[in-house]
Amino acid sequence: MKENFSSGLLVDLYLLTMAQGYWETGKAQQKVVFHLSFRKNPFQNGYTIFGGLQPALEAVENFNFSKTDLDYLASLEIVDNKPLFSKKFLRLLKNFKPQCQIHAFSEGSVVFAGEPVMRISGPLLDCQLLESLLLNIINFQSLIATKATRIMTVTQQKPIYEFGLRRAQGINGAVSASRAAFIGGCSATSNLLAGKLYKIPVIGTHSHSWVLSFASEQEAFKSYIQSFPDKFSLLVDTYTTLSGVKNAIEVVNKYSSKEKFIGIRLDSGDLTYFSNKARKLLDKAGYNQTKIIVSNDLDEYIISSLNEQKSAIDIWAIGTKLVTAANDAALNGVYKLSALYHKETQKWQFCCKLSEDPSKINNPSILQIRRFFNKQGFAICDAIYNQLDKTEIKKNFVIVNPLNHWQHKKILAGTNYQDLLLEVMKEGKISKPLPSLQQIKQNVTTSLSNFDFSIKRLINPHIYPVGLEEKLYELKKNMIINIQKNAKI
Amino acid sequence: MKENFSSGLLVDLYLLTMAQGYWETGKAQQKVVFHLSFRKNPFQNGYTIFGGLQPALEAVENFNFSKTDLDYLASLEIVDNKPLFSKKFLRLLKNFKPQCQIHAFSEGSVVFAGEPVMRISGPLLDCQLLESLLLNIINFQSLIATKATRIMTVTQQKPIYEFGLRRAQGINGAVSASRAAFIGGCSATSNLLAGKLYKIPVIGTHSHSWVLSFASEQEAFKSYIQSFPDKFSLLVDTYTTLSGVKNAIEVVNKYSSKEKFIGIRLDSGDLTYFSNKARKLLDKAGYNQTKIIVSNDLDEYIISSLNEQKSAIDIWAIGTKLVTAANDAALNGVYKLSALYHKETQKWQFCCKLSEDPSKINNPSILQIRRFFNKQGFAICDAIYNQLDKTEIKKNFVIVNPLNHWQHKKILAGTNYQDLLLEVMKEGKISKPLPSLQQIKQNVTTSLSNFDFSIKRLINPHIYPVGLEEKLYELKKNMIINIQKNAKI
Repeated sequence: MKENFSSGLLVDLYLLTMAQGYWETGKAQQKVVFHLSFRKNPFQNGYTIFGGLQPALEAVENFNFSKTDLDYLASLEIVDNKPLFSKKFLRLLKNFKPQCQIHAFSEGSVVFAGEPVMRISGPLLDCQLLESLLLNIINFQSLIATKATRIMTVTQQKPIYEFGLRRAQGINGAVSASRAAFIGGCSATSNLLAGKLYKIPVIGTHSHSWVLSFASEQEAFKSYIQSFPDKFSLLVDTYTTLSGVKNAIEVVNKYSSKEKFIGIRLDSGDLTYFSNKARKLLDKAGYNQTKIIVSNDLDEYIISSLNEQKSAIDIWAIGTKLVTAANDAALNGVYKLSALYHKETQKWQFCCKLSEDPSKINNPSILQIRRFFNKQGFAICDAIYNQLDKTEIKKNFVIVNPLNHWQHKKILAGTNYQDLLLEVMKEGKISKPLPSLQQIKQNVTTSLSNFDFSIKRLINPHIYPVGLEEKLYELKKNMIINIQKNAKI
Repeated sequence: MKENFSSGLLVDLYLLTMAQGYWETGKAQQKVVFHLSFRKNPFQNGYTIFGGLQPALEAVENFNFSKTDLDYLASLEIVDNKPLFSKKFLRLLKNFKPQCQIHAFSEGSVVFAGEPVMRISGPLLDCQLLESLLLNIINFQSLIATKATRIMTVTQQKPIYEFGLRRAQGINGAVSASRAAFIGGCSATSNLLAGKLYKIPVIGTHSHSWVLSFASEQEAFKSYIQSFPDKFSLLVDTYTTLSGVKNAIEVVNKYSSKEKFIGIRLDSGDLTYFSNKARKLLDKAGYNQTKIIVSNDLDEYIISSLNEQKSAIDIWAIGTKLVTAANDAALNGVYKLSALYHKETQKWQFCCKLSEDPSKINNPSILQIRRFFNKQGFAICDAIYNQLDKTEIKKNFVIVNPLNHWQHKKILAGTNYQDLLLEVMKEGKISKPLPSLQQIKQNVTTSLSNFDFSIKRLINPHIYPVGLEEKLYELKKNMIINIQKNAKI
């Protein structure tokens, strides 16, 4: 399986070449601040769920270079017979443990495009090396947790089972998707490894092969019931669906009883037609409590349509489109340097990367997110502000949308608020016990309940106001103008 | 990282409940045949590249249940205080090693939707347990290898670097994507772990953070060159792109020389405009050999368009859309039981699962693929045939498209052919040394060169003829009719 790796090599090569460069130029220990943020909400959604924090922090705590990692690095050449990395630098990596401080939203929080979801501070070399690792974990788990909440908005309180292992993007893709899908709202997974690692309830009965391996469908059902007499579901569409339902009823009538027959599963065909027909057959035979579970390339749009058609479905089993986040298979998180501390002058220098695309220009300084709430307790806007300058944010002030400068929102002094980036790691160690997966799942529900439904619509959601506090906006604008003044054109 | 797992739990729960059921009903040792096939080529492509065979076989060889896996399974309950799995069954799993025989296409081969790419035979329990594991690995690596070859068709022989780690679906998603992208044609990866595990060349220089961490862009370039004097590339778009190019030239003029300055990288903006402007500036300064490397959400369509616009790009760096296979994030491989051996009668019984969707009906019997070639050596069609009945395939015969029964193709006796499913595993052990990654990459090129360009078009490719040998077609048709005759309607 080639899975027994340390996390030290979970880096893009350039992080290590830069690290060596920082170290050679004496900058490795300079104190800096990076922020991790998403450029867009996925799926044209109105929000993103922040996922993956716990595995990300565990990865940072365990970050190290093994003997074979270092041997591998020593074998890389920049030109023939000239090593890429110096022996001295590799000796440094041997005992390297990142000494970073991390502030982050609590896992499961509702977050928005453009705002920092993590702030990583500490020595330049240490913070830089975590870039790929943090992005990989946070991007993917946030993507899947968000997808799961989108699906939850249309399931009408009926449970979702996650069945994605076979179509997921790699093994860890499957396992971490199971975790993120669970926090986003799924009730159970078919993936046993995820069940073991994360204590997620596991679910499943039999497949078409089971039925095909017997001389008849009836015999297959009978044998399955005899193997699991206490509780069973039967997959009824191996041959023709309604015949399968009738066979299931006959066999249960003969060999088992109502309470044990917890479900039938439909995996193909017209799900509205078959679920309604199956419901009638089951009810008529007295199996009113037997649930109808369906699967077959479901997503939030198909479920929504099945609801409109009044299908008789009790449980949704979702694989491919949930665990691969079809059709938006990646979240575009970025990790940007925004402040450097100069010991000599005891001053912070802020950084701003330019781009023609305004969403690609990072926000300078050391950032915090303040979420404001109305009297009913609903969130009304998020202000991104510079922690080192809180003069304006205490008064009435204005936030400016960095992607549309004409859009402002006034916030009155005294409005209820919460600052959302909280310390989760100090000097490379997790600061305090992390919440359980159940608690993270609960946080998703609570966090979403603070927002009006309009941002949760699947299509054309309301755009929740996120803006730069006005002094930060001015700071950024002036930095950009200055950079452009100095450009050689 | 929670990555130190054995592969025994890489199963959907129902595989294990069925396994217990097979064992209890005395069917566990029954000899069976499963086939793995893809229902569709991804990306509406004309073919699929078969990837992931080596890691899949290694996973099968190492398949086992650890002590903690078994403890976990023992802890699962079917109803309160009643274990899901019996102690006897768990004892069986303790020493379980799958005793399967596997036939497969060679890794890197061109394969087509609907044809089996692997045939797994052996005891029912053993073959069944491998379902999720094989599908997960083969689906994803085939998907990414196919995506890479699509991109290769438009790069005009210019190299592709794979830069996907930060946006991939999980860590293993990234590492296995790097492997598959390499066999599909990429020259190098930024992912050091993939470099170490698979000996893929690694590549990368510096990011925007490097530039931002210095007082000026010039100083940043100078320091980078001093750290890596033998060979370097410079990222020029941290502030304004053309100013960046000018700064790079100035600094190289002063502190280095032509041969060392191997490239500049553009990561944003109008790539046609900037690459052409940058090319002129570089050429004018005498840096004709310095390459222009670009990145920025590239895929085969954008590259194709940049080519049409005559951009001056020498190397493509591709991340997100390659490693997540946007916008077709999953390959729909399935694993279907198609034959059972009855000891008592010494006869094979064939299996066929029905569906309203014809692509979901599996092909019964024990299958082999025969690829036919014309005199020029080009592949002309693939025949799926029953290994146990070769009477027709030796004469002139006809293949029938199972998705369009009006479509036939006649094949003359004496036409050159190759049978493509070859033994790769026997009794759970890899049969013979597997090819190196370089050889697999070469196999992709060779295999593709056997096909006319028309199947490799990005849009509306020619549909290569794949069909059932006529006796197999009749067999399948008669089985379906019989099943329907027996249905309760």
